[in-house]
Amino acid sequence: MKLSHQELKGMSPSQVRGVIRKGQWGGPTAGLCDGHAQANLVALPREFAMDFLIFCQRNQKACPLLDVTDPGGWEPKLVAPGADIRTDIPKYRIYVGGELAEEVSCVKDHWRDDLVGFLLGCSFSFEWALLDQGIPVRHIEEGKNVSMYVTDIMCKEAGVFKGPMVVSMRPIPHHLVPKAVLCTGRFPFVHGAPVHVGDPSSIGIKDISRPDFGDPVTIKEGEVPVFWACGVTPQAVAMASKVPFMISHSPGHMFICDIRNSELAVF
Amino acid sequence: MKLSHQELKGMSPSQVRGVIRKGQWGGPTAGLCDGHAQANLVALPREFAMDFLIFCQRNQKACPLLDVTDPGGWEPKLVAPGADIRTDIPKYRIYVGGELAEEVSCVKDHWRDDLVGFLLGCSFSFEWALLDQGIPVRHIEEGKNVSMYVTDIMCKEAGVFKGPMVVSMRPIPHHLVPKAVLCTGRFPFVHGAPVHVGDPSSIGIKDISRPDFGDPVTIKEGEVPVFWACGVTPQAVAMASKVPFMISHSPGHMFICDIRNSELAVF
Repeated sequence: MKLSHQELKGMSPSQVRGVIRKGQWGGPTAGLCDGHAQANLVALPREFAMDFLIFCQRNQKACPLLDVTDPGGWEPKLVAPGADIRTDIPKYRIYVGGELAEEVSCVKDHWRDDLVGFLLGCSFSFEWALLDQGIPVRHIEEGKNVSMYVTDIMCKEAGVFKGPMVVSMRPIPHHLVPKAVLCTGRFPFVHGAPVHVGDPSSIGIKDISRPDFGDPVTIKEGEVPVFWACGVTPQAVAMASKVPFMISHSPGHMFICDIRNSELAVF
Repeated sequence: MKLSHQELKGMSPSQVRGVIRKGQWGGPTAGLCDGHAQANLVALPREFAMDFLIFCQRNQKACPLLDVTDPGGWEPKLVAPGADIRTDIPKYRIYVGGELAEEVSCVKDHWRDDLVGFLLGCSFSFEWALLDQGIPVRHIEEGKNVSMYVTDIMCKEAGVFKGPMVVSMRPIPHHLVPKAVLCTGRFPFVHGAPVHVGDPSSIGIKDISRPDFGDPVTIKEGEVPVFWACGVTPQAVAMASKVPFMISHSPGHMFICDIRNSELAVF
């Protein structure tokens, strides 16, 4: 029996993960467990996992590692002890040779002894901080997905993993840019301060009205486009590397952590 | 021909690394290349390197990874492109089965295709910030090594790597404790804010006047012992794990990075 979004309101992260595990919720996780961090999943065979770890270390702004499972293990011990990344996400994608093979609600049958699971932080965490400071977040106001762009800023390579940095863009009123920089800078482990302010063309973005991922949003008079390193980067890079086998979450269907967004701030 | 400390003054990090590479400096690196970050080295065979990477991710405060080489590679691409970690450190230690086997000035002949080099940040970086804020750093005043203690705070395990957190202690005047917390908190990638303020016994330190490593320092009337996670932790843990082969720097003989300490601050 499926539950409604309303019935999930007020539940703790472990309760919602339990509901997802029982197959009673298969939808997106936006708006669930207010205040708690949500994470992207990438699971890779051990032989690729070390290079991916090194890739994340070299490109920390784009690849904020919140947790890494023991090889073959499925418990995210730092962010949600006792949880199971094979069952606690509403929808998964299985990639074989870089191609999407199937979309499933549980990956217990797909799990392998050599898989390492990576949970990567997402911008939900710092958007909460922007809103808390009275800074408008346009795609939320407009009920859209955030605008994301492939830039010409190249990530530092590691093994088979290489590719450009993907950024997310939020239009910010000129006078609020400093505040937006400072308050996201408090989250160095979840993308941190912006990587670029203004002039999209100088980071290789040809047309700001045509994002590569997500939706276009309105940029009002008196606003400047501000760009943050985006967690789509490691996923795009992992897909492009055409590793033989990979599991990820389905877009918007995230892992809900026990830790709170506010715990990810350094001050 | 050896050079004097005086002759090295004013040289850039790459110049000093060149001098070390040519065997013209074999001493400690304290005081060299003022303002530039210095790093600890741990090099491990690939089969242990992934677990060590995961260990560092799980224990970020104690294990601040500044750079990781490609497996078999010796270039720290992030912190000193073009450098060679096999030759650019004045003194190395070779461990076999957890036992110190020899101390050498170059590890080119000991290097293996499966070694991964880890450069870990050190507290020199945030001590600079403390001094810059007018906060006294006692062991520097007294010309000693910092006091370090094994605590009963257990690190989160990863594979063979497990053990207690080692902390460094600096006595801080009560009214300067908040300032010391804030200014080291700016360095979340180099140990960050303290892990403990006051009462040594509650983290398993029996006698503050008898540090496990380094020297005892004077704690004056009106000062409180403040404890920071210490970079000795990952080295102690790697040694205790008795991996078959491991290379590290010799204490005090560090790798000098191109990046400046101030670049490691997040704001």
